[in-house]
Amino acid sequence: MATEIVEVQGHIIDSLILAKVLDVILDAGADYRMVDVEIGRTNVDASRARLELTAPDDDALARLLTELQVHGANRLTQTDAEVAVADMDGAFPEGFYSTTNLPTEVRLHGRWVAVENPEMDCGLIVLPDGRVRTEPMHRVRLGDGVVVGQEGVRVRPLDRPRGASPFEFMTSEVSSEKPKDLLVGEVANRLRQAKAHGGKVLAVCGPAVVHTGAAPHLARLVRAGWVDVLFAGNGFATHDIESNVVGTSLGVPLGANTAPPEGGHSNHLRVINEVRRRGSIAAAVADGWLRSGVMHDCVSLGVPFVLGGSVRDDGPLPDVYQNVVEAADAMRALLPGISVALMLASTLHAIATGNLLPAGVETYCVDINQAVVTKLADRGSHQALGIVTDVGLFLSILADHLAPPHHVDG
Amino acid sequence: MATEIVEVQGHIIDSLILAKVLDVILDAGADYRMVDVEIGRTNVDASRARLELTAPDDDALARLLTELQVHGANRLTQTDAEVAVADMDGAFPEGFYSTTNLPTEVRLHGRWVAVENPEMDCGLIVLPDGRVRTEPMHRVRLGDGVVVGQEGVRVRPLDRPRGASPFEFMTSEVSSEKPKDLLVGEVANRLRQAKAHGGKVLAVCGPAVVHTGAAPHLARLVRAGWVDVLFAGNGFATHDIESNVVGTSLGVPLGANTAPPEGGHSNHLRVINEVRRRGSIAAAVADGWLRSGVMHDCVSLGVPFVLGGSVRDDGPLPDVYQNVVEAADAMRALLPGISVALMLASTLHAIATGNLLPAGVETYCVDINQAVVTKLADRGSHQALGIVTDVGLFLSILADHLAPPHHVDG
Amino acid sequence: MATEIVEVQGHIIDSLILAKVLDVILDAGADYRMVDVEIGRTNVDASRARLELTAPDDDALARLLTELQVHGANRLTQTDAEVAVADMDGAFPEGFYSTTNLPTEVRLHGRWVAVENPEMDCGLIVLPDGRVRTEPMHRVRLGDGVVVGQEGVRVRPLDRPRGASPFEFMTSEVSSEKPKDLLVGEVANRLRQAKAHGGKVLAVCGPAVVHTGAAPHLARLVRAGWVDVLFAGNGFATHDIESNVVGTSLGVPLGANTAPPEGGHSNHLRVINEVRRRGSIAAAVADGWLRSGVMHDCVSLGVPFVLGGSVRDDGPLPDVYQNVVEAADAMRALLPGISVALMLASTLHAIATGNLLPAGVETYCVDINQAVVTKLADRGSHQALGIVTDVGLFLSILADHLAPPHHVDG
Amino acid sequence: MATEIVEVQGHIIDSLILAKVLDVILDAGADYRMVDVEIGRTNVDASRARLELTAPDDDALARLLTELQVHGANRLTQTDAEVAVADMDGAFPEGFYSTTNLPTEVRLHGRWVAVENPEMDCGLIVLPDGRVRTEPMHRVRLGDGVVVGQEGVRVRPLDRPRGASPFEFMTSEVSSEKPKDLLVGEVANRLRQAKAHGGKVLAVCGPAVVHTGAAPHLARLVRAGWVDVLFAGNGFATHDIESNVVGTSLGVPLGANTAPPEGGHSNHLRVINEVRRRGSIAAAVADGWLRSGVMHDCVSLGVPFVLGGSVRDDGPLPDVYQNVVEAADAMRALLPGISVALMLASTLHAIATGNLLPAGVETYCVDINQAVVTKLADRGSHQALGIVTDVGLFLSILADHLAPPHHVDG
Repeated sequence: MATEIVEVQGHIIDSLILAKVLDVILDAGADYRMVDVEIGRTNVDASRARLELTAPDDDALARLLTELQVHGANRLTQTDAEVAVADMDGAFPEGFYSTTNLPTEVRLHGRWVAVENPEMDCGLIVLPDGRVRTEPMHRVRLGDGVVVGQEGVRVRPLDRPRGASPFEFMTSEVSSEKPKDLLVGEVANRLRQAKAHGGKVLAVCGPAVVHTGAAPHLARLVRAGWVDVLFAGNGFATHDIESNVVGTSLGVPLGANTAPPEGGHSNHLRVINEVRRRGSIAAAVADGWLRSGVMHDCVSLGVPFVLGGSVRDDGPLPDVYQNVVEAADAMRALLPGISVALMLASTLHAIATGNLLPAGVETYCVDINQAVVTKLADRGSHQALGIVTDVGLFLSILADHLAPPHHVDG
Repeated sequence: MATEIVEVQGHIIDSLILAKVLDVILDAGADYRMVDVEIGRTNVDASRARLELTAPDDDALARLLTELQVHGANRLTQTDAEVAVADMDGAFPEGFYSTTNLPTEVRLHGRWVAVENPEMDCGLIVLPDGRVRTEPMHRVRLGDGVVVGQEGVRVRPLDRPRGASPFEFMTSEVSSEKPKDLLVGEVANRLRQAKAHGGKVLAVCGPAVVHTGAAPHLARLVRAGWVDVLFAGNGFATHDIESNVVGTSLGVPLGANTAPPEGGHSNHLRVINEVRRRGSIAAAVADGWLRSGVMHDCVSLGVPFVLGGSVRDDGPLPDVYQNVVEAADAMRALLPGISVALMLASTLHAIATGNLLPAGVETYCVDINQAVVTKLADRGSHQALGIVTDVGLFLSILADHLAPPHHVDG
Repeated sequence: MATEIVEVQGHIIDSLILAKVLDVILDAGADYRMVDVEIGRTNVDASRARLELTAPDDDALARLLTELQVHGANRLTQTDAEVAVADMDGAFPEGFYSTTNLPTEVRLHGRWVAVENPEMDCGLIVLPDGRVRTEPMHRVRLGDGVVVGQEGVRVRPLDRPRGASPFEFMTSEVSSEKPKDLLVGEVANRLRQAKAHGGKVLAVCGPAVVHTGAAPHLARLVRAGWVDVLFAGNGFATHDIESNVVGTSLGVPLGANTAPPEGGHSNHLRVINEVRRRGSIAAAVADGWLRSGVMHDCVSLGVPFVLGGSVRDDGPLPDVYQNVVEAADAMRALLPGISVALMLASTLHAIATGNLLPAGVETYCVDINQAVVTKLADRGSHQALGIVTDVGLFLSILADHLAPPHHVDG
Repeated sequence: MATEIVEVQGHIIDSLILAKVLDVILDAGADYRMVDVEIGRTNVDASRARLELTAPDDDALARLLTELQVHGANRLTQTDAEVAVADMDGAFPEGFYSTTNLPTEVRLHGRWVAVENPEMDCGLIVLPDGRVRTEPMHRVRLGDGVVVGQEGVRVRPLDRPRGASPFEFMTSEVSSEKPKDLLVGEVANRLRQAKAHGGKVLAVCGPAVVHTGAAPHLARLVRAGWVDVLFAGNGFATHDIESNVVGTSLGVPLGANTAPPEGGHSNHLRVINEVRRRGSIAAAVADGWLRSGVMHDCVSLGVPFVLGGSVRDDGPLPDVYQNVVEAADAMRALLPGISVALMLASTLHAIATGNLLPAGVETYCVDINQAVVTKLADRGSHQALGIVTDVGLFLSILADHLAPPHHVDG
């Protein structure tokens, strides 16, 4: 039998942290004894619990400690972290510490050093100057200092947001049977607050944003400054460009009550071909071929975007990262400062983004398919909230809240 | 081997009727030979096909003829229909003709008599005065004249609506990835056209209409005269009343941006109890206890409604038909004149209504769950169209099209 | 401001009870102060917390106490319950106590009396001999003694089952991405345990059980004694009979690799008509017309069933309760002794059953549609677990676990 | 006004080709006149129709002809195809012919030349030796001969499979309410037939194959020779390896009734790291670290596989194509000879594969989510069939049909 004492602190009752910790212990076939519990008297007081764990053997205990740290439980006694030297490029040494997306500190020479960029499923690299950064596996280089083992690493669990809210508690999901006008209004408020505090907003977009007719509403939000960074794939960008270029070339104004000209079967391919002939979306904007739409507005207003490639892509557009590892690195580079992420009818890129975000980023996943929303909202320990609704109508109403047509385009 | 010649007429190519007929024949293990085909030259010309069927035996042929008639194929040679006398209450004689929901005629004494009220899964009763009506099984009475066998009955297949449309062809469903503003606008147009031609509109409502915050929008449509008949269950009516009464009693005005006070766990039960103490919803309106909402507006404006009971009901409200057979009969009584049906986030009552409607009624099934929409839209040979979207946002936008707030309530 | 002290006891941390209680308090706009907390040292020790609530006024406090009791929180100080006399048939007096489905006690003359049949959304009737029963609203009679107000009623919260489990914790749902063979095996184990302890098994069946080809597997379970009570609707019973009778009459053995003869469009209607002509399913079994299938096996083995009517029913079969209130009463009468409920691809009857069951009944909701499973599993405080899978394959494998073909039918 | 005569041949009634052609014409705002129609007398006779199209102008006519060719309608009068010279790498000349996935011929010097590898959304490259191949946009090189315009290209529409079938007609989808044992048996038969005729089977796998416990069943099929090519992503391969390696290292035999050791949060990362340290999956097999599972069996038996990268990948495994364009090219290289494709709970890779396959490949899309199945089965003009069921139970039963345990592993 192997034993160890762990501690959790914070709003461990109402953020369900203690319940989850007990559950992880029992599911692992281990046992616990409460050695000390202090429950906060009021809603604002933090609580604290220390538990003595008993596991069948040292291996089981080590695995359990790894699992518990995902939920914010740290060993009570901490020594300095062990740092090993990477023996090859592109892979960690055995026993590497595998990160959570929670705020993390590493103990080096008796002092706790905060990790600069929390990201899950990475390793911790100790830089020569003593700073500590997460790095994904493919970026480690021979000779890097890599934290191994569990000792000397502690995390801070995430409290759930306080106060009454139209959003559900104890579930990461808003069912389809909720007052939707209200929810959209609340998301608008959260965006306002985030911007007011200097936060950035990230929009992650799937092609259904265009198919449901919501792209003009999203473009309005971009023009009104509500989108600071945009992630998408080849499909979203292509269909956005197609609906604007083909619309324009046919002389049809894409007004609110006009159907986006349903691309003939080859339109999207011709659009991609034209952009490839020009070299980039920016070049297509510059020479006047592309005159409106979300991608156009991002280019003209300097809103940075990453288009990550996928194996189903036609073309792809020249701006698309064909190498997916490079795409993820490009996304990482744009994350600092993001405080709200809107996942808009995207599965692939939304999951990719969720993997990269630190736990504290408020994330709203909007999709009409409950299974997709569940999948997105349940990954990791994000403050993610799923909203089961029609992205077309959602963006229409959100844009009316934040960027009424006449204010923006008049 | 048994053979017979059948004929289909109308837009049998583009309404897929001929393809479906051929499919039914082969799936039944039978075979066919085209004896005569005339294809319309243009889009407005009708076509006609005569096919000689060959089935293994007389029984198989009879079964095949029954199946084919659902798709509008009639025998070429028709004699008078056979009429048997019902030998008991509440059940047909063996071999009764089982109806489709298509326009149907019965040959009696050498003349074709139109059936007054086409409804599927009924029998045909020949009245003493020579008229023919469909009647459900439970309404047949000892001594009634009931059409038996296939001979002497012919139907008219349903052409699909002509012309370009934002709605999909060759599928009964609009996927979630369609421009939604446009679709809502098109539904608004269809309602305008129906009313302009003297048609009535039926709304079939599930509780999610209230939960998604759409009830005030539906009430607006009721007040503006867009709803002629309403079908629902105990849940819809209760939650509509609850959100209005509890809202009012708490002094909270239920404005567009105010949450419906989430019923405490027992609120709906107290609301039902209060209505039961008063005897009916109308009595609760009369004594001033119920002052707003969809049910209130139906009562004050004389919009007839049927609340059909279900085994999951609490209470139920005194207006709810506890006997489901009587509920269906009450619904039948309100169908004449209906030309458009809106199925709003309802499964049970929508299917029930679909079973009762003649094929020609334009039907829009709105639900966020694709499986529900498929189920509703695929039943029978209706002109049913499923729209996968959020009923809360759908009704909000539909009401803005047809009954802008200031026009109605100002 | 109004205050009151409430207490929760049991596994209040790991069963999430305390977290839920705190959440309900804050969502209601009230506040709390912990006055006493004892956390169990180990996994088997119970915990206890006393909280002082502060609400804006007496009404808000009363509403909050009602909400908290759903989660097992009781007032600390309890006096005798107030009992009012019903002033009319079919409705409670104002202020009636609205029940949860938790084990409940009522204080009368200084003694706590256990409620005999916990059921949610009912009232509490004090019988002349001092016993206390829940009764639905429609069964109250003028002169009955009805508990009113919150005082003198206490409940016992439901601990979640202990120990490791393949089933998820902190969610009422098993996603589609779980090892299904294992889950089916675990459900089989739970059924074995329930029967070994003298419990009864209830099966609630939707028509998809027949459509997916699973009815023969269910019939095997019935014949092997694994189903003690069956609830369904007109659709399930009709399609079960149809697939057996039409199968037999065509001389087609319904073996594992034979398609159930896809009913022609009128087959189900003819089947209903035949049973109506005979008067009941039992009569159809007795005269040899119905010789196999789930309904046949229930009749021959004396397994009681309730077929609850719905407004979409054709016919209906003579055994179907046309009055839905009587149907629910008939279901209530069969619940005593049930310890496991299987909801098999049923929405309507599964929700109806869930409303009637006491909280402690283990409930497995099997459906391929995640939204349905969520809806079923989230209602009330049942020990309900949703399994997102194909009911056809689920029952095939469950029957192989519990009733291998050769053992049963050889 | 512009006019042109087009012709469709084949089973144009029962394969819905003519109906679709008429629909496309009217939706495009054009009109038609039937100039000649011959309807086949019997089920085996082909039909033929010639239509005179009238469109508003030459551009509209050209667009319409493009759309019609997707459905198999060709111009009646054909001249030689126009071949332009590519003026740059990686993009087609303007006006390039955009391919369908139907069997296609190009008229060069008065002779019709069959396109070697039909694939949709590509261009047609005329090789120096006169052969014609489809090439995706990124592969065109300066100086290549590229077919431009519509003239001189004809396609052959795809007849639907003849005869009765448990699968649905006139819909690309099998609803969840179908007899599933039968469907699985029918898929097994189709695989047997395909192999008997020398066809190859392609399996496209999502991670849910592993999560639902179906990987051992799939491995059985691989070992019994039923899988000739496998496409998947980093997730499937990682979880397959993880469940085998972690299982083995813990000494737990992965029998039918044992849970796959639920990876701790970092297990998948450690597994990827280990394979990266070894250099490839094959190296991990060679040094004995990986001893079982689907990927292991593919390596040992020489079943070729492509793992296509995606932006959400951790690691990735060294075998994963990080460049998505190269991944698609690698997939293309393995397609010749494939006659059946099984899409197993995969969205991304299934859509990617569907884009690459010629229309004649029988494709079965298995997923528990109806929306996914619809999306997959509706793309292009494949003979694709969606089956809404649980992939875990599906593969378990399919493997029992084709590779009973004792035959394979005994």
